[in-house]
Order: sequence, then structure tokens, then C-alpha cells
Amino acid sequence: MRFRLTPRETNFYDLFATAADNILSGSKLLQELLGADSEGRAELADRMRAAEHAGDDTTHAIFHELNSTFVTPFDREDIYRLASCLDDIMDFMEEAVDLVVLYRVEELPQGVEQQIEVICRAAELTAEAMPQLRTMENLTEYWIEVNRLENQADRVHRKLLAHLFDGSYDAIEVMKLKQIVDVLEEAADAFERVANTVESIAVKES
Amino acid sequence: MRFRLTPRETNFYDLFATAADNILSGSKLLQELLGADSEGRAELADRMRAAEHAGDDTTHAIFHELNSTFVTPFDREDIYRLASCLDDIMDFMEEAVDLVVLYRVEELPQGVEQQIEVICRAAELTAEAMPQLRTMENLTEYWIEVNRLENQADRVHRKLLAHLFDGSYDAIEVMKLKQIVDVLEEAADAFERVANTVESIAVKES
Amino acid sequence: MRFRLTPRETNFYDLFATAADNILSGSKLLQELLGADSEGRAELADRMRAAEHAGDDTTHAIFHELNSTFVTPFDREDIYRLASCLDDIMDFMEEAVDLVVLYRVEELPQGVEQQIEVICRAAELTAEAMPQLRTMENLTEYWIEVNRLENQADRVHRKLLAHLFDGSYDAIEVMKLKQIVDVLEEAADAFERVANTVESIAVKES
Repeated sequence: MRFRLTPRETNFYDLFATAADNILSGSKLLQELLGADSEGRAELADRMRAAEHAGDDTTHAIFHELNSTFVTPFDREDIYRLASCLDDIMDFMEEAVDLVVLYRVEELPQGVEQQIEVICRAAELTAEAMPQLRTMENLTEYWIEVNRLENQADRVHRKLLAHLFDGSYDAIEVMKLKQIVDVLEEAADAFERVANTVESIAVKES
Repeated sequence: MRFRLTPRETNFYDLFATAADNILSGSKLLQELLGADSEGRAELADRMRAAEHAGDDTTHAIFHELNSTFVTPFDREDIYRLASCLDDIMDFMEEAVDLVVLYRVEELPQGVEQQIEVICRAAELTAEAMPQLRTMENLTEYWIEVNRLENQADRVHRKLLAHLFDGSYDAIEVMKLKQIVDVLEEAADAFERVANTVESIAVKES
Repeated sequence: MRFRLTPRETNFYDLFATAADNILSGSKLLQELLGADSEGRAELADRMRAAEHAGDDTTHAIFHELNSTFVTPFDREDIYRLASCLDDIMDFMEEAVDLVVLYRVEELPQGVEQQIEVICRAAELTAEAMPQLRTMENLTEYWIEVNRLENQADRVHRKLLAHLFDGSYDAIEVMKLKQIVDVLEEAADAFERVANTVESIAVKES
């Protein structure tokens, strides 16, 4: 494994850690959204857009590294999948904030707060896990917990859908809110895909 | 080709057959849905959820096998794709039943019955085809027929969309029913992706 | 690199060029849609369907070539990705025209015209770029410009969404139009994925 510790490969680990830290910051902006007024929301959307662009740069750096490196720390397909899924998370979080502003949503339905809590927790776990890729240690709890969180997100999402269609909202409002809660659910799913990719990397290493 | 017959690789064939059999059972639950009352539907949703979890276990077993096996019977990417598409089918079927219950749908629009018929037929063909992967025999009719079925599903789906928007339903109802018929169409598409993956495996073998 | 110039590999270049030319023709049908009356639209939908089937044949030929060729001009995964993304573009363009006819849309909202302009421009650039894969020359401007176009498409799409939900349309109409503008946005995204795949191929070649 010693040959792993060449600068080039270290690079991959650093880039995955950067991507995860950026997602963590994004998840905190998502949380701020809940308390924000329309002015605050617009400002949050700008910061979220900046975070998403930073994420794109990291993703691009990983792909460039991948395409120009002969020896990679793990399978090229896994690196590709991991970078893509991390990029997806950032995109979904940014889209959620963007839609809230774009659709001038007055009030988010009960349950969105729990969706965001789950995303924040998954973001913390992912940010802690990425640096562990170097040693492949203590990753089991990470993916078990992220899978548990995704199931929880799923239940919250289903409750939200049932609520949106129970007659409390008019059709146009349902469309707006459904798109927002769906994209938050997609973010939670993407965290699980990241965890599953990490698991498959770990299995190959073992 | 003799080296193919090691226990480890036999394992892949068995796991793909198990996944397809599970999908076949799921498709029958989907058919039962049509005649069921609201109580029966809830009970079907539970059995469908159990079938979907069984499917997840098989998918996970295939990935674990893939990640821990050096020599695989066919390209790793094809095995990955095949397992993922089979998993998608189960997810979409489960989602359809789940949405019918979640949205308390009174009556499914005409055409859903045909969608489900196509899915059941594709499930039978897929369950018959998976064991053939061992010998790669008689697979041509399978993927030709599944592609034909998918085109048929497509026409049924388009008719359903036109009907949903022809003014027979209010907007909220359209949203609910559209999500259900769309997810059933996604299931039909996934069967075609399975068939196309099998075809690409066969081409490489030939 | 000399070994690259075998007939078999030339084949890939020709097939990618054919796929891109077909997309270019499709994009022109998309533009014709704007001025067409309901009769003209139905006829355009037929021609679009024919173009999409031609696209499917090319995609199938690429996959068959990929599966039966030992030495490929670039990574198999990249060839697979490139062919799939080109196929997606055609599918999305066909779906857009199909939905306009299927939903009997009277008038397309302002902004769709710009979406289609961007798609037509991206189609031209892609058709010019594919033949360059042989020499890998002058591709940088291509992917920079396609990425710029996708960002422009994004802004147009967001404006369209805001407009659709500003109260100018009833809920059913919003659903119909949203699906159409969303699928056009997906086409624009797919052009970007093609460009990104070309970039990753170029990086590996360099």
C-alpha cells in the first residue's frame, strides 16, 4: 500500500475531502434557509450558487486528475462515481434553495425542516468519512448510518407528499412544493450513493 | 469457457436468476393491485415492500460478489449494469403500489391495466432469460420481444397522458395519476435496459 | 498512434459524426415547430420520430462495434458515454415535439424560442466537433462554447419556470408546459455532457 502515498494520489484524497467540506457548508446554508425572510433567502441563494460553483471546480479537478493519472488509489470507475455523486448532492441542495426563491414560496410545509436536518447530518458524516478513505478505517459505521438516515428521509418525504395532496394546498402550490421536497429527497439519495460507492471501494480493498 | 464453471461465477448466474424471480413475484403483486380494495392495497404495499427489500439484498450480494471476485463471467461493467437495472425495476414497481396507497387513489385510469400486463409479460420473459446467461442460448427472441413490449408500453403510456390531460380530471388528480403511470412506464423502460445489457453481453461472447 | 487508423476505428468516428448530423437535422425540425400550425406539428412529429429511430440505429451500431472491437480509439467507457449522451439529445428533442402534439398545446410560452435557438447552436457545434475527434484538434473552443450555451439555456429555463408559475396559466396548462420546457432543458444539458466527455477524451490523449 506504500505506493499509495505519492503526491498525485494524495491529491485524490484531498479533493474528495474538499468536495465533502463544501457540501457541509452548503448544508448549513440550507438550514439557514428555514429561518430566512425573502431578502435573506435571495442572499442565501447567491451564497449557495457560489458554493455550487466551488463544487464544480473540485469535481472538474478530480476528473482532470483521473484522466491524466495512470495509477489511481482505487478503481477509476469508483473515483468517477464518487466524484459524480458528491457533485449531485451540491447540485440538488443548490436547486432546492434556488426553487424556493424562484417560486417565491411563502412558507415551506412542515417536514422540510426534518428533510434538511437529515441532509445536514449526512453531510457531517460524509465530511468525516472522506479523509478516512486514505486508511479505509472506521468507514462501516459511516455507511450504515447514512443508509439509516436515507430511510428516515424517505419516510419524511412520503409524509410530505401525502400532506401536499391532502387538500391543504391548491394545485399550483402543490407543484411548486412537490418539486422542492423531491429535490431535497434526491439530495438524501445522493448521500446514500456516495456511501454505497465508499462501501464498494472498501470491499475491494479488504 | 470451461473456467466459467467455477462456484464463484455460478454464483452470479444464481443471483441474477433470484433477482428476476423476485421481480416476477413483484409483477404479480402489481396485477393484484388492480382488483384490490383500499384494505387489500395496503396489504399489497407491505408485501411489495418486502419484495423490494429482498431485491435489495440480492443486488447487494451481486455487488459484494463483483467487488470481491477477480474473474467474472462477463465484463464487470455489464454485471454492474445488469444488477442495477434489475434493481430499478423492483424499485419502480414498489413505488407504483406505494403511490396508489399514499395518494389514496380511488380509481386507476383505463390503460394502467395494459401497462401492468406488459410489465408482467416482460417479467416472465426476464425470469426465463436470466438462467440462459450461463449458456447464452435462445436469448435473441427474449430481447427482441422485450423491446417490442417496451414500444407497446410506450404507446399505452402516451395514450394515458393524453387522457389525463383531456379534462376528465382535476389538476391535483392529474398530478397523482401522472406520477403513477410515469413510474410504471419507467419500470417498462428498465426491462428494456436489462434486455439491452444482455444483448451487449451476448455480442461480446459471440 | 498510427495503429489508430485501422478501418474498424475509423468506423467509430464515422458513426459519431452520423449521430451528430442526425441531431443537427432534428434540431432544425425543432425550430420548424415554432412556426407550425397543428397540422404541420403532427407532420413534424412524424419526421422527428423517424430521425429518432435513425439515431437509435446509429447508437446501436456504435454499441455493437464497441462490443465486437478489441482495440478502440479511446476508452470503452468514453465511447459508451459519448454514444449514450448523443442518443439522449435525440430522445429529448423528439419527446419535446411529441408532447406539444400529444398535449395539443395552443401556444408555447415566450422563452421556448430561445431554448430552441440554444439547442440549434449547440447542435451545429457538436456536428462540427465530432469529425475533429480523429485529430483531436480545435476542440477546446467547442466545449467552452457548449458549456457557455448550457448556462444560457439554464437562465432561460429558470425565467420560463418563474413565468409558468406567475399566475398566467391554469394548473393543467402549467403541468403540460413545464414538462415541455423541462425536456428542452434536458436536451441542452445532454449537449454539455457530450462536450464534457469529449474534453475527458482529449485530456487522456494529450
